[in-house]
Amino acid sequence: MKKLTKKIGMPPGSLVFTGKQKTEKVRIDIMDYDSDNINEKKTDNIEECFIYKDSSSVTWIDIKGIHDVNITSKAGEHFGIHPLILEDILNTNQRPKAEIFDDHIYIVLKMLSFNVPEGLVDSEQVSIIIGKNYVISFQEKEDDIFEPLRERIRKSKGRIRTAGADYLAYSILDVITDNYFLVLEKVGEQMEELEEQLLKGPKQETLNLLYILKRETMLLRKSVWPLRELSLKLERSESAIISEKTHPFLRDLYDHTIQVIDTVETYRELLAGLIELYMSSISNKMNEIMKVLTIIATIFIPLTFIAGVYGMNFHFMPELEWHWAYFAVLALMLVIGGGMLIFFRRKRWI
Amino acid sequence: MKKLTKKIGMPPGSLVFTGKQKTEKVRIDIMDYDSDNINEKKTDNIEECFIYKDSSSVTWIDIKGIHDVNITSKAGEHFGIHPLILEDILNTNQRPKAEIFDDHIYIVLKMLSFNVPEGLVDSEQVSIIIGKNYVISFQEKEDDIFEPLRERIRKSKGRIRTAGADYLAYSILDVITDNYFLVLEKVGEQMEELEEQLLKGPKQETLNLLYILKRETMLLRKSVWPLRELSLKLERSESAIISEKTHPFLRDLYDHTIQVIDTVETYRELLAGLIELYMSSISNKMNEIMKVLTIIATIFIPLTFIAGVYGMNFHFMPELEWHWAYFAVLALMLVIGGGMLIFFRRKRWI
Amino acid sequence: MKKLTKKIGMPPGSLVFTGKQKTEKVRIDIMDYDSDNINEKKTDNIEECFIYKDSSSVTWIDIKGIHDVNITSKAGEHFGIHPLILEDILNTNQRPKAEIFDDHIYIVLKMLSFNVPEGLVDSEQVSIIIGKNYVISFQEKEDDIFEPLRERIRKSKGRIRTAGADYLAYSILDVITDNYFLVLEKVGEQMEELEEQLLKGPKQETLNLLYILKRETMLLRKSVWPLRELSLKLERSESAIISEKTHPFLRDLYDHTIQVIDTVETYRELLAGLIELYMSSISNKMNEIMKVLTIIATIFIPLTFIAGVYGMNFHFMPELEWHWAYFAVLALMLVIGGGMLIFFRRKRWI
Amino acid sequence: MKKLTKKIGMPPGSLVFTGKQKTEKVRIDIMDYDSDNINEKKTDNIEECFIYKDSSSVTWIDIKGIHDVNITSKAGEHFGIHPLILEDILNTNQRPKAEIFDDHIYIVLKMLSFNVPEGLVDSEQVSIIIGKNYVISFQEKEDDIFEPLRERIRKSKGRIRTAGADYLAYSILDVITDNYFLVLEKVGEQMEELEEQLLKGPKQETLNLLYILKRETMLLRKSVWPLRELSLKLERSESAIISEKTHPFLRDLYDHTIQVIDTVETYRELLAGLIELYMSSISNKMNEIMKVLTIIATIFIPLTFIAGVYGMNFHFMPELEWHWAYFAVLALMLVIGGGMLIFFRRKRWI
Amino acid sequence: MKKLTKKIGMPPGSLVFTGKQKTEKVRIDIMDYDSDNINEKKTDNIEECFIYKDSSSVTWIDIKGIHDVNITSKAGEHFGIHPLILEDILNTNQRPKAEIFDDHIYIVLKMLSFNVPEGLVDSEQVSIIIGKNYVISFQEKEDDIFEPLRERIRKSKGRIRTAGADYLAYSILDVITDNYFLVLEKVGEQMEELEEQLLKGPKQETLNLLYILKRETMLLRKSVWPLRELSLKLERSESAIISEKTHPFLRDLYDHTIQVIDTVETYRELLAGLIELYMSSISNKMNEIMKVLTIIATIFIPLTFIAGVYGMNFHFMPELEWHWAYFAVLALMLVIGGGMLIFFRRKRWI
Repeated sequence: MKKLTKKIGMPPGSLVFTGKQKTEKVRIDIMDYDSDNINEKKTDNIEECFIYKDSSSVTWIDIKGIHDVNITSKAGEHFGIHPLILEDILNTNQRPKAEIFDDHIYIVLKMLSFNVPEGLVDSEQVSIIIGKNYVISFQEKEDDIFEPLRERIRKSKGRIRTAGADYLAYSILDVITDNYFLVLEKVGEQMEELEEQLLKGPKQETLNLLYILKRETMLLRKSVWPLRELSLKLERSESAIISEKTHPFLRDLYDHTIQVIDTVETYRELLAGLIELYMSSISNKMNEIMKVLTIIATIFIPLTFIAGVYGMNFHFMPELEWHWAYFAVLALMLVIGGGMLIFFRRKRWI
Repeated sequence: MKKLTKKIGMPPGSLVFTGKQKTEKVRIDIMDYDSDNINEKKTDNIEECFIYKDSSSVTWIDIKGIHDVNITSKAGEHFGIHPLILEDILNTNQRPKAEIFDDHIYIVLKMLSFNVPEGLVDSEQVSIIIGKNYVISFQEKEDDIFEPLRERIRKSKGRIRTAGADYLAYSILDVITDNYFLVLEKVGEQMEELEEQLLKGPKQETLNLLYILKRETMLLRKSVWPLRELSLKLERSESAIISEKTHPFLRDLYDHTIQVIDTVETYRELLAGLIELYMSSISNKMNEIMKVLTIIATIFIPLTFIAGVYGMNFHFMPELEWHWAYFAVLALMLVIGGGMLIFFRRKRWI
Repeated sequence: MKKLTKKIGMPPGSLVFTGKQKTEKVRIDIMDYDSDNINEKKTDNIEECFIYKDSSSVTWIDIKGIHDVNITSKAGEHFGIHPLILEDILNTNQRPKAEIFDDHIYIVLKMLSFNVPEGLVDSEQVSIIIGKNYVISFQEKEDDIFEPLRERIRKSKGRIRTAGADYLAYSILDVITDNYFLVLEKVGEQMEELEEQLLKGPKQETLNLLYILKRETMLLRKSVWPLRELSLKLERSESAIISEKTHPFLRDLYDHTIQVIDTVETYRELLAGLIELYMSSISNKMNEIMKVLTIIATIFIPLTFIAGVYGMNFHFMPELEWHWAYFAVLALMLVIGGGMLIFFRRKRWI
Repeated sequence: MKKLTKKIGMPPGSLVFTGKQKTEKVRIDIMDYDSDNINEKKTDNIEECFIYKDSSSVTWIDIKGIHDVNITSKAGEHFGIHPLILEDILNTNQRPKAEIFDDHIYIVLKMLSFNVPEGLVDSEQVSIIIGKNYVISFQEKEDDIFEPLRERIRKSKGRIRTAGADYLAYSILDVITDNYFLVLEKVGEQMEELEEQLLKGPKQETLNLLYILKRETMLLRKSVWPLRELSLKLERSESAIISEKTHPFLRDLYDHTIQVIDTVETYRELLAGLIELYMSSISNKMNEIMKVLTIIATIFIPLTFIAGVYGMNFHFMPELEWHWAYFAVLALMLVIGGGMLIFFRRKRWI
Repeated sequence: MKKLTKKIGMPPGSLVFTGKQKTEKVRIDIMDYDSDNINEKKTDNIEECFIYKDSSSVTWIDIKGIHDVNITSKAGEHFGIHPLILEDILNTNQRPKAEIFDDHIYIVLKMLSFNVPEGLVDSEQVSIIIGKNYVISFQEKEDDIFEPLRERIRKSKGRIRTAGADYLAYSILDVITDNYFLVLEKVGEQMEELEEQLLKGPKQETLNLLYILKRETMLLRKSVWPLRELSLKLERSESAIISEKTHPFLRDLYDHTIQVIDTVETYRELLAGLIELYMSSISNKMNEIMKVLTIIATIFIPLTFIAGVYGMNFHFMPELEWHWAYFAVLALMLVIGGGMLIFFRRKRWI
């Protein structure tokens, strides 16, 4: 949030990158195709993309790295994107949303991935501009997450080469949503592991991990809930950019979103249950410890008292001289100790 | 969720079975009837069903086992089902829903059954395609849950032989919903048992069972809540496939759904209450244990101290030589002990 | 829920009584009146009621006992009631609701009464069919709860003799709702009693009673919440059966329902507060017990140690031979004990 | 609620006073004014008010004391009020609401005041009937809460003398709402006081006061929430009784209502926080007590054991005869005690 | 709230300042500009602003200090503001809201700033009147928060000089909203600090700080939630005062508001998690303390008892005379102590 506060006082629409730079150099991957031909190009000069604005083929301009404000600014100018939208693209704290304009649609959402070594969920912001026959995507990192999709376009699998830019955008969203399931699977595995740890015996460390997971789920939730509104807005939009044939796919996207949300909510409930279980296990253990202490103390404290009495040094203590006194006292102690044990068994403490 | 993540990168509409194979061979039961005739056939060749697509009689094609993608794919092609729907049929993680198309309705929901030996609720996905005069149902297992319904068709009980495919589909949904009550009854019995265990005395084991039951109820809830929307959507649809006469039955289905949801919610509340009761019982027991420890310790610790004092070996301790000192000290101890007991009674600890 | 599961596999609309038989013989009370004449009859033959279907006077057919499926079935046939409604009448697990048909209205709700000896709320299902000029009510038991209403009809108090069947039905609903206040009053008294018990000192028994009351309130809530929708549906319906003049009374019924719901919700909150108070009282008490134990133990354990030291039998312990050593040690003990007491006072433990 | 249950069985619209009689004699204050003249009268005969029904000046009939059913009944008859409304006026358990009729509007709400000696919130029911050019208000007590308003009318401050009956009614509601702020201020002061008590040290008594305050807030909430709907209904009504010019004032009333609700909700949250803080303070204190006990016991129990060992009377204990044994043992004890202290410091218990 | 209650009994629209006076003298900053010229003036005479009411240039009248009722009253009269709105401007307890009139729009909201030395959030009320070509803003203090905005106007950065009064008002709102992010950043830093403190070891002081932060967040929430409705109302309004071109900016404002609310809600959840973590850490620590106590006590209490037995002074105790008895007893003690340790290890207490 640091960088965000630096922008205070600037006029709205000021283009400032507010995230952490995650890739060294901006790389632009261009893919231009129609049902017959396909054309791929890698560049770092945004101006090379400008010719595709009005071409009849579908063009996918994938901009990896958004820290170079210049590139976004030029693209925005050429493709006629509102400065406020450009500002949103550069602000990596954006809440997922879709905005529908006359000649393009703006979508921003989070791409989640599971960082295995740290056991944490990584989040990257992806912005998508859908035009009549082009899609511009903005990523923070140079990830190969869209590689299978590119491969599908190259090999012309499915309807992707015959459908328009709207279907391409849908495919990008679909890939991102599919990755949510991957992340959820990993989080689910972590939860199972913690549950096993918990059943073996509760430790403070387990609790800390539970809280980290709880926070993780909280952030997941924040990325995931707005998707519902986003996909609904796309599906229900009457924009000319989204063709009739893409609607069933958007409905499917909506269904997936709901499923992701459902799973996140289930995880939250399960986690709350695990934390509660942890607490009650601690409580139970405490109870057991107290029982042991009480049993030992309650048996021996009175006995020690008796021993103390006959350890007093009074000159006149008649019992001390009796011949069987010692054994009688030992017997008395045995009776008291045994009586206590019977009392505890009755109370179901043993 | 494992298999689901394998599909990442595939184009939407790719047909991959993502569940666990629950039956060895796919079996297809065909039932073709009108008010006068009835015709039953068992096969494993989906193509034998194709002739019923446009027959005037009502046909129920019950496909048991969905792991053979080929069969679903062929059926989908012949009966004109959208590839995304076929994908949903094969994805056993589907959220219950209904989708209404021009010439057919797609319904997917969970069939629950209670697995007595394990004490757990089993869940199986059932997909239903309702056409003008056919119903195709997809089950994961070879269950005989629909046998009473078949029997009713054979014996022509009720209106089933005279009504159309929509009524048949309703009857299938009705059987599934009725089974929910069976499951709820079993869960209710488990809860009563746990409550009895709880009143006898709280154990860690009881708590674990309570948490298993809580999780069970959570999953039940996830299967059950979407049914409300599903049945409402069916009842309110103006699809030509659902005849006017079937609407009261769908309203009845909606009522049953609400009742199931109500019961699940009540169970959730009762379970939360039981867990809370468990916690407070533990707390109470701890209290009682502490009381016993405190009473014993508080009475005997001072007395032991007095005994310790007169057990000291100082050469000059005048009391030691007094004749009645020993009995005086014993009397003093009695007074102190008794005083303590009176104090405890005043505090209502005894 | 047992009997409900027996119905699995039967066609919808199968008439099976699923409740517990609460009266031996079905008794039918018929009351036929207009502004001038009144006519009462008691019978056990449902066919005697049939003549009233199209009479111009208002007829109230009160069927006490619904275990005889035959009677309901015949009545249903003659008065043109849908089989699914008849099934609902016989299913005593019904959720309160109203259904509006062209020529009649079906209402089902719970009649609550407080069973004083057991301290529990009893619930009985009442179904009401409102026709153009007749009302059929179905009760499970032979209760005299409607006697004051009958008396009002006989004595022609209020507008009841001049208004139609809709007003009669409203009056029945009004009597049932009024009884809710009676039940709430009793539950409120129980709560006050428990609160008093709680302030005297928390016992495990009080907690159990609190949980029973909590469950009771939960069930009350389940009976009461759907009434809101029910009364709203009646008030807003444009059915010809409900005359314009009855609408203000239905609005009044709605107000009463809201008041009942409000009270139930307040009770729930108060109960949650009482349970929380119980918990914190236990916690407080434990605290106090621990304090006493700690004070006693912390004072005497060090003193006993000192006594122990001078009770050792070493041959060479110079202090033992000093003349004032004993008194010096006693003084030391006094100082330590006093110091502890001052420390505790500072900590505000005493 | 006692009296309410006495009404069971009576026809709806039966006029029975169900509250506690709070004033001895009913007093009626009449104020009749237009922009030029003003006329005040005090009476106990309701019939004297009847002439004002159709006068062109604005009349405020303030009835103090509603236990005399006769007066309400006569007023109702003359001013054409529905018997169900009259019943509501006499039932002091009414939920705040507004009902809009063709020729009058009925409003019922609670007037709150803070009973300083008891530290509790008092609640009185006020009913208001707004006609074309009269306002009838029903209070339970002879309070002077409306005196400043009367004074304003007399002195013709603000627009009150020129505006109509609707503005008068608004002014009455405004006075009542203003008093809510007074009550909230007092409750806020109580909360601050309790918070201070809490920070000094938690006592059982503080907890009990917190629970009383919680209950108070619960009841406040019950009086306050329905006001939102009430004021919204008035503002949005298109009744001819409410002139266009009064609407901004009603919107202001709505704003005040929201503010009252907001404050009550904030208080509830603060109270919940205070109770939680109390609990955790208790828990902390317990922790500290346990620490002291554990430190003392853990240091001295082993030392006392050592002293015990050398207090044994065995004939052959070589150490006893060693010359420096006593001092060696004392040194050993010092080492053990010191070691324990270091261990505790490491554990951060000291 | 004190001053608010003083207003009871006054007619609505009475102008009384109910806040705390935060600046000595009222200062009025006037800024009048069009695309070519700019004109700034500082005055304390409100009448100097009157000439700008109908000028064609855009005028921003920034009134700093609202305790002088006279100024507000005169401004209200000249610019035609409803007395109820003037009353709202002077009442610093106002809930954020927007009200749209024919010829002006009234907006009231809270300006938050972080008071670093006290570690608390300060809140100041800002009211904004938007006219056709003027904006009047009312602040409580002489803050320089709008200085960057003034600078932007002077340097004619962005579209501000060419756009109208609506864009100026938006810019003011934008500056205020941006400051919320600053406050949230500070609160976030405090939370991180507390979390670190918590992980080092829970202290009562940490808990108190957590509760202060919780209360802070609660008040933040109260300021922030109504902004959602406020910005939505502005964006959706069809008022002629807001030009078409400003709408995208208002949508952006709405987005920012949602982001602020989201962050506040996340903070609330995180805080609740921290408090829960604190509680469980305390519970864990208690557990550990109890374990140490129990282990020490359970090992030494029985041993001390044995020592006590052989410290008794009976004349006839055969063991005392045995030669190896002392060593045998020491060995026995060792065995018992060791056995206890093994028992504890098995129980996983060590």
